[in-house]
Amino acid sequence: MAGKLYGVSVGPGDPELITIKAKRCIESSDVIAYPVRERGEESTALNIVKGAIDLSGKRIEGILFEMSPDPSVRESNYKEAVKKVASLLDEGDVSMINLGDATVFSTYMHVSMDISEMGYETETIPGVTSFCTGAAEANIPLVIDNEGLAIVPMAKGGDKVFKALRDFDNIVVMKAFNSMRTLASMMNELGIPHENAVVVSNVSMKDQYIGKFDPERKYGYFTTVIIKKNGGTVR
Amino acid sequence: MAGKLYGVSVGPGDPELITIKAKRCIESSDVIAYPVRERGEESTALNIVKGAIDLSGKRIEGILFEMSPDPSVRESNYKEAVKKVASLLDEGDVSMINLGDATVFSTYMHVSMDISEMGYETETIPGVTSFCTGAAEANIPLVIDNEGLAIVPMAKGGDKVFKALRDFDNIVVMKAFNSMRTLASMMNELGIPHENAVVVSNVSMKDQYIGKFDPERKYGYFTTVIIKKNGGTVR
Repeated sequence: MAGKLYGVSVGPGDPELITIKAKRCIESSDVIAYPVRERGEESTALNIVKGAIDLSGKRIEGILFEMSPDPSVRESNYKEAVKKVASLLDEGDVSMINLGDATVFSTYMHVSMDISEMGYETETIPGVTSFCTGAAEANIPLVIDNEGLAIVPMAKGGDKVFKALRDFDNIVVMKAFNSMRTLASMMNELGIPHENAVVVSNVSMKDQYIGKFDPERKYGYFTTVIIKKNGGTVR
Repeated sequence: MAGKLYGVSVGPGDPELITIKAKRCIESSDVIAYPVRERGEESTALNIVKGAIDLSGKRIEGILFEMSPDPSVRESNYKEAVKKVASLLDEGDVSMINLGDATVFSTYMHVSMDISEMGYETETIPGVTSFCTGAAEANIPLVIDNEGLAIVPMAKGGDKVFKALRDFDNIVVMKAFNSMRTLASMMNELGIPHENAVVVSNVSMKDQYIGKFDPERKYGYFTTVIIKKNGGTVR
């Protein structure tokens, strides 16, 4: 009988932010799979798991999800990856580990849907998101009372970010690391003071930075900006 | 020396969705405090904790945060509650437990800010949200690729919900339990098929319901609707 695919969310960085369920799932799986964007890349998710769980005796497999600018390369690579996951399932249960929560901006959900269509059983284990952790570390509410919250990636053009800044009380801008100046000019246009923003970078990792929004500063790859129009950021 | 206030997120219902850190925090605290809306109310958060952690020997205190329609009653009650928490801190470390994640729609963040201003040390421990769990249970992505996500409470008038439905790819409508018809008519007006919505009610609790959106059906108090305009709901 084929194994089951678990999409296991391992939280944003601190191994203690793994849930009891995620730990149990990983411990009982035969294979631990982790997604990588390029061959040989170090896996943040795997390092988090190693901080809380003994992986000795388990098969550990990096699965390549290439970030090629060529869609046909990405597509054929993606199909290979799914085939690889299916072949691992023929050996036993597989825990595919995911940074943060697996339902929020992860490749895993694509894989899960395809694997499920191939007839395998799948289950997603939710986890702690980086934005909840960032707000907790800054000791500010992410959203409170009857406010709304928008979570938007800083994608090309930034239209989504602009609309979110215009209409919402609280805005989480993800993938913001190299778009700080664009974000600053949108805030200026909408009259949102820079003091209402807090930068959350590499949260709950060793080089965590939580602090004021400074568009001229350089930030790490995992950088999120939390903007609270009603105030209440870092004190 | 006064104790420290921990705002401990315990996840949406399943005791296994408590993090290792939350467990450690609760185990090492002298007092476990839980918020209630009326005297004698059973605490969902406390029941979750009891499912994973032995609380014997700990002082357990319900703190009343009244939901009176009279703002002055609410205000004076709130001040009493904060005073009570401060007095508990004079006895030792206090873990105030929170359903889901403490930074998302919780009274705790108000308390934390006030307690912190009174000179006590505070720390918030993030947790798994109900909307991430709902999406995981339905095995759908909450947000993927370059999409955006809006999280809005179904408050009076529903303006926020309408704007979110208009502008976002993915919308989580919280506190939706008695507003299903309002939500249905907004979706109709915007041409969003009801099949693109999934209802997540009492997620990861005993009477969990995850299924199709039916505005005529009755749902429990903890009901959230996840709407995906690009499709991909319950299969």
